[in-house]
Amino acid sequence: MVKLFDNINEEVYRSYIFWSTILVVKMLVMSVLTGLQRFRKKAFVNPEDIATMPKLKLKFDDPDVERVRRAHLNDLENILPFFLICFLYLLTGPNVTLAKNLIRAAAFGRILHSLVYAVIVIPQPARLLSFLLTLIITLYMLLQCVVYYF
Amino acid sequence: MVKLFDNINEEVYRSYIFWSTILVVKMLVMSVLTGLQRFRKKAFVNPEDIATMPKLKLKFDDPDVERVRRAHLNDLENILPFFLICFLYLLTGPNVTLAKNLIRAAAFGRILHSLVYAVIVIPQPARLLSFLLTLIITLYMLLQCVVYYF
Amino acid sequence: MVKLFDNINEEVYRSYIFWSTILVVKMLVMSVLTGLQRFRKKAFVNPEDIATMPKLKLKFDDPDVERVRRAHLNDLENILPFFLICFLYLLTGPNVTLAKNLIRAAAFGRILHSLVYAVIVIPQPARLLSFLLTLIITLYMLLQCVVYYF
Repeated sequence: MVKLFDNINEEVYRSYIFWSTILVVKMLVMSVLTGLQRFRKKAFVNPEDIATMPKLKLKFDDPDVERVRRAHLNDLENILPFFLICFLYLLTGPNVTLAKNLIRAAAFGRILHSLVYAVIVIPQPARLLSFLLTLIITLYMLLQCVVYYF
Repeated sequence: MVKLFDNINEEVYRSYIFWSTILVVKMLVMSVLTGLQRFRKKAFVNPEDIATMPKLKLKFDDPDVERVRRAHLNDLENILPFFLICFLYLLTGPNVTLAKNLIRAAAFGRILHSLVYAVIVIPQPARLLSFLLTLIITLYMLLQCVVYYF
Repeated sequence: MVKLFDNINEEVYRSYIFWSTILVVKMLVMSVLTGLQRFRKKAFVNPEDIATMPKLKLKFDDPDVERVRRAHLNDLENILPFFLICFLYLLTGPNVTLAKNLIRAAAFGRILHSLVYAVIVIPQPARLLSFLLTLIITLYMLLQCVVYYF
């Protein structure tokens, strides 16, 4: 057993699990939201999806559907790496209060990002700032990993 | 070392590893399938890919290629979060038989989803049901995590 | 506590963490690169992004932007499964030198892939070979997992 695991503080770990769970729910909601938008705008992209609705045509470029899909892809690009890096960061035995607040802030950033991107569109720089919030926390955790491990 | 890890049952953990391995293979096969469809339909999207075939033009919207790509993206959106949530669920010390069958069913759902979406197109609701099977299992595991940790 | 964790060699684990960190940085750089290309080519896809630049129109098909986005998606499809499979492979207690070199080569393959795909476009088969390098290593690790666990 690698000794590194001994560094994980149970309180921080629970916080990590809690917010990871929330973020996964948030990501799965994007799937549901895409489905709802496809029905609302009648923008289906597979022939079998409109087989029972002969008057419909395939529609690949609905702006509302594509917006949700971009927000979802952005989640994959940012939340999934965060899960890994945050876990490695916890293995470095960080300050408990700091780590908990960083996790909270990172989760908040991604929830805000989805809201201003795909639910209620808010003028820039709302999306940029929420995106940067989580990105900067991820980069800070990465830096801490580099300092600790190497 | 966080005590949470003590909850993992070795038999369930092996089942988790087995089906995770299968699902990763399945996802990598989607890459290969995309490549095969691009060659079959001569639908390449990068100029350097057709440099030696001067008669070809770039083709961005081939329905068969795009279908495989959508199935692949759907895998990323659903299988990757499943890996994380299922691991957290195992940490809650679930019933061994239940956990093993849930993992099996979730993997079965995703394999079926790829088959009916990207290999042999089967009329709806085949794709919807296979998609929901894994989604509902993931949500159940999420709920168990929430109940256990909070 | 599952006994499987006892197999992880600390030296290999540190190598895994190091290269995972590098690969996550590389993936996050793709986000930044997409943003830079969008500004350079003035190819924005959300109305709110060009609200202050009334002369601009939305532009969905800029080849340079789409190239970076495809490279990024390809990262998600290949690097994220690699993280999981490589960890499971480390649990099988592989030869230390072999494991370290496989991790290094896999990371090298993905960095090269991004460079020849999205930074300086190099004629094929540069991209194909760098893609296959990491894919084959991932498949080898998968095979080792199957042999060990089943």
